[in-house]
Amino acid sequence: MFYSKRDLYFQLFELVDCESLCQYAYFQDHDKESFKMVLDAAESIAEKMLLPLLTDMDRNEPQLVDGKIRIHPGMKAVIKKMGEDGWVNAAFDYEEGGQQLPTTLLNAAGFIFQAANYSSSIFTYMSGGASNLIRTFGSKKLVDTFTPAIYAGKWQATMALTEPDAGSSLSDITTSAEETGEEGVYKIKGQKIYISAGDHDACENVVHLMLAKIKGGPIGAKGISLFVVPQKRIDGDTLVFNDVVTAGVFHKMGYKGAPIAHLSMGSSDDCYGYLVGEPHKGLSYMFQLMNEARVTVGMNATAIGTAAYHASLKYAKERPQGRKIYEKNPALPQTAIINHADVKRMLLFQKAVVEGSLSLLIYCSKLADLIHVETGDTKEKYTFLLDLLTPIAKSYPSEMCCLSTSAAVQTLGGAGYTTDFPVEQYYREARIHPIHEGTTGIHGIDLLGRKITMQNGKATQLFFDEVENAIQEAANNDDLKPYATHLKQYGLKVQDVTRHLLSLAQRGETEKYLADATLYLEMFGILTIAWQWLLQAEIALRKMEQAHAEDKNFYQGKWMTMKYFFEYELVKIDSLALRLKSNNAVTVEMQSDWF
Amino acid sequence: MFYSKRDLYFQLFELVDCESLCQYAYFQDHDKESFKMVLDAAESIAEKMLLPLLTDMDRNEPQLVDGKIRIHPGMKAVIKKMGEDGWVNAAFDYEEGGQQLPTTLLNAAGFIFQAANYSSSIFTYMSGGASNLIRTFGSKKLVDTFTPAIYAGKWQATMALTEPDAGSSLSDITTSAEETGEEGVYKIKGQKIYISAGDHDACENVVHLMLAKIKGGPIGAKGISLFVVPQKRIDGDTLVFNDVVTAGVFHKMGYKGAPIAHLSMGSSDDCYGYLVGEPHKGLSYMFQLMNEARVTVGMNATAIGTAAYHASLKYAKERPQGRKIYEKNPALPQTAIINHADVKRMLLFQKAVVEGSLSLLIYCSKLADLIHVETGDTKEKYTFLLDLLTPIAKSYPSEMCCLSTSAAVQTLGGAGYTTDFPVEQYYREARIHPIHEGTTGIHGIDLLGRKITMQNGKATQLFFDEVENAIQEAANNDDLKPYATHLKQYGLKVQDVTRHLLSLAQRGETEKYLADATLYLEMFGILTIAWQWLLQAEIALRKMEQAHAEDKNFYQGKWMTMKYFFEYELVKIDSLALRLKSNNAVTVEMQSDWF
Repeated sequence: MFYSKRDLYFQLFELVDCESLCQYAYFQDHDKESFKMVLDAAESIAEKMLLPLLTDMDRNEPQLVDGKIRIHPGMKAVIKKMGEDGWVNAAFDYEEGGQQLPTTLLNAAGFIFQAANYSSSIFTYMSGGASNLIRTFGSKKLVDTFTPAIYAGKWQATMALTEPDAGSSLSDITTSAEETGEEGVYKIKGQKIYISAGDHDACENVVHLMLAKIKGGPIGAKGISLFVVPQKRIDGDTLVFNDVVTAGVFHKMGYKGAPIAHLSMGSSDDCYGYLVGEPHKGLSYMFQLMNEARVTVGMNATAIGTAAYHASLKYAKERPQGRKIYEKNPALPQTAIINHADVKRMLLFQKAVVEGSLSLLIYCSKLADLIHVETGDTKEKYTFLLDLLTPIAKSYPSEMCCLSTSAAVQTLGGAGYTTDFPVEQYYREARIHPIHEGTTGIHGIDLLGRKITMQNGKATQLFFDEVENAIQEAANNDDLKPYATHLKQYGLKVQDVTRHLLSLAQRGETEKYLADATLYLEMFGILTIAWQWLLQAEIALRKMEQAHAEDKNFYQGKWMTMKYFFEYELVKIDSLALRLKSNNAVTVEMQSDWF
Repeated sequence: MFYSKRDLYFQLFELVDCESLCQYAYFQDHDKESFKMVLDAAESIAEKMLLPLLTDMDRNEPQLVDGKIRIHPGMKAVIKKMGEDGWVNAAFDYEEGGQQLPTTLLNAAGFIFQAANYSSSIFTYMSGGASNLIRTFGSKKLVDTFTPAIYAGKWQATMALTEPDAGSSLSDITTSAEETGEEGVYKIKGQKIYISAGDHDACENVVHLMLAKIKGGPIGAKGISLFVVPQKRIDGDTLVFNDVVTAGVFHKMGYKGAPIAHLSMGSSDDCYGYLVGEPHKGLSYMFQLMNEARVTVGMNATAIGTAAYHASLKYAKERPQGRKIYEKNPALPQTAIINHADVKRMLLFQKAVVEGSLSLLIYCSKLADLIHVETGDTKEKYTFLLDLLTPIAKSYPSEMCCLSTSAAVQTLGGAGYTTDFPVEQYYREARIHPIHEGTTGIHGIDLLGRKITMQNGKATQLFFDEVENAIQEAANNDDLKPYATHLKQYGLKVQDVTRHLLSLAQRGETEKYLADATLYLEMFGILTIAWQWLLQAEIALRKMEQAHAEDKNFYQGKWMTMKYFFEYELVKIDSLALRLKSNNAVTVEMQSDWF
């Protein structure tokens, strides 16, 4: 299997108690059984439709033919099915045709899709996220015009941000929007690159949620507006060319099944876009989607890492090679490689990373649901926590699943490097995640430069309160107490490093303050995942005694993996803290000519 | 450029003083100028013949057609040229047609070839290594029969070890050799997999140096013998089929230009092999080649990492994106990304890894030369040092260049993930090195289980003496002294960890003792590279004042990179030591059913 249903149930029903969401009016029609049905439906699609295309989509990547991107022919049925079954708008309101499904469940279902075949999962995901922008900020006319076909899977929706000269620096986009005289209608001109699902032949139309600058507006980020720019615009009953030309398709190391387009708008001066919301507020609108998308990228990475973990686990149980290290008799039969400590280390590393990441991501998803249904101080608290955790939920899984898929390759040895097994594909696919939706470096600066300090560190304080709660709870168990103590100590260490860095900020040494923000993000991520593992182990230990044999094994695995994380990963904070507290600003002082 | 000639000269002529080898009679015909001519000749081939094939060989991988592996048609001219110019046997004696070139220089030239196009470099390398086994251990008849065509580049030579059921566990090979009555001639039957250059259409014949077990011999490693098994055997003046069938070609994530074969011997009971040396000594013979090959694998990884570093450095200098972190005015032009501290960090990391690795590898190469020409205690000392350092010289670059090529991808952002730039190829190619020629796990056990303890830790003591010499030398410079002190402290920490682990061995707790051998190897590798950086910085600081402007920049770069390594990498020993001294044997205790 490409994921563990047992673990996903553990995360949803034992760890975050997602049933508790059904107490809220908005989610009251759901219950545990309906949640399980949602997961079963996702698994069925994943197994029957997505997984069978995994290898073939990698080997037959999208091609630009006569101005149109041709994708794998198998995707057409998938996109249709996803639309028909309501996956695009499942989390939206009933009155919009949605199912008011908690994001927690939608993300859990997404995890199953992504673990089966990451590339195939992005079409529906992009449509859901981009259409959410229209319904949240757009006029009724825009909603009525564009969303029904997107929800139905007939049209594709995208987010179109990046340009050739504006990647990480979004404020430098140059795509322009010029008033036409008709209210809300603008002429669009410019180039966009790296547009996921930006063009393909499995849908009739592609609707871009596009950032552009209205001519005469403020420079920089303050002049960015959001537009709906369809590939084909509606003219009466027909769709007509809207001067959005596919200038190219990017060929990539992995994630090959997804068509990533280079788009050119307005080269014949005939591209029209429709303003979403107010002028010059585009970036703040887009950030709603980007913040959701960042959690999803963390989930993508975790899903790929999960599939790689299970592939390598299966291999390790089946492959005989060598004997136990203390066994010198060559006449004995070989043992399965899972019996070697070094192989178990590589498997525990993967399990620790992917199940620790999943737990953080499910937690963040539940925060999003609570923000949706709560009010007042409680809503504010969850909003702060999710804001703080978003760069970590995006970056920890993204960075670590590059390493965990590498451990999967290593577990298979030479076989892992060949295309006879899927792990090499997972290794290539995982590598995109530290890049898109903000590079790891950008998220480091977001965490240390913005999130940690917002409202005098209120989010940071709320986070450490949550960690402290977990520590107190765990300390009631004698077996867990030493680990709770460790987490406490490492929490203090992280806070000490934070104070040191903030003192640089206070002295106006901005460059030094943020120079190692990536390392700070790494350190904070390790602490966060250790907290999640303590929570998991607390439940596992509590339930172990009463559990039946199979569950006992499952809980034993959780307990051992928590120990692994604390023994091998948490201790990395010591080295990171040493560096982060050093005053030797070597990366700031280094000069271009010295390389 | 895909490598730095200035750095290679620094490593060869300023750091290890490879000219000093010319004092020995064996190398007396060489001098600095002739060494430079060798490097120039390598660069010329690399630039004109290898680099132009880099991308194309990746995209047109070898295919098995009618039982024969077809490789890129461009390789035929390369293999011919390499043979004609004497690269196969350059290090061998004059009387054999060789040039008595020091291994140090041959490896430096190999580094240039590999940095230009790794896949294309292995044909000649395999022929050199495998033919060295014939000339060292084979009869005159074998030498006369097989080596001239190999040296000339007309025939390919290989090392054929791995089998479907015997990868890391070589003692479990089942390929059999049966006496024919004719002395030294055996009938061979079996399967070999993952044979680099094991079959291709650019040479007339392929000569396998193959491990097999003579029927009736001892079981396990003690029953392994070495044979020459040609693809076609000589029958009078012609070459005839020797029942070596190419059963398949492996398709891989990277390193695609190299044909990796699955071979089947004796399926028609007509495969003959010729014993090399004495029966049952095959493994010890093969280890000569494997030990050399392990240093070469380290060099391969370093060369790929070097090419990726220079590609990302070029991009970082040219690509404008964003403004300095303290600059809030969006109207200012964007700055080149190399001016961002986080990008400099990624570049410094790469530089620290690849130039630190290269320096260790050049040092090890010089040890090999000194072992060749020295005698008595001096020879023994160098042999011990090289034995100890071989697993590190193989594994540190192999593991770290997976991460450094990843940093190269990250430096380019989205562009790095596309096939528009070579860094994604380097990332895929680098991943083979922690696997072949012994996985990292195997080398960890080799270091901690064998090398550290051999002759009561004599090699370890010699290594720490060398480190101490560097510390003493560096301590004479006030700027370097704090770093020398740090290295001293970390050396003591590594020795402390070593004592702890050896105490487990002494108590007979073999599994616990070796469970984290991979982490021990990582820790020892970091210390070793820190030592190399201290040596480099000592020279850089000494020469900086008198240097002209360009050289001053070069030495500044060395000084800053040493600081980077000590600030960001050396400190990792703290966390590794914490884990290695823990008594929580989580990977030993973990059970298969708990995953």
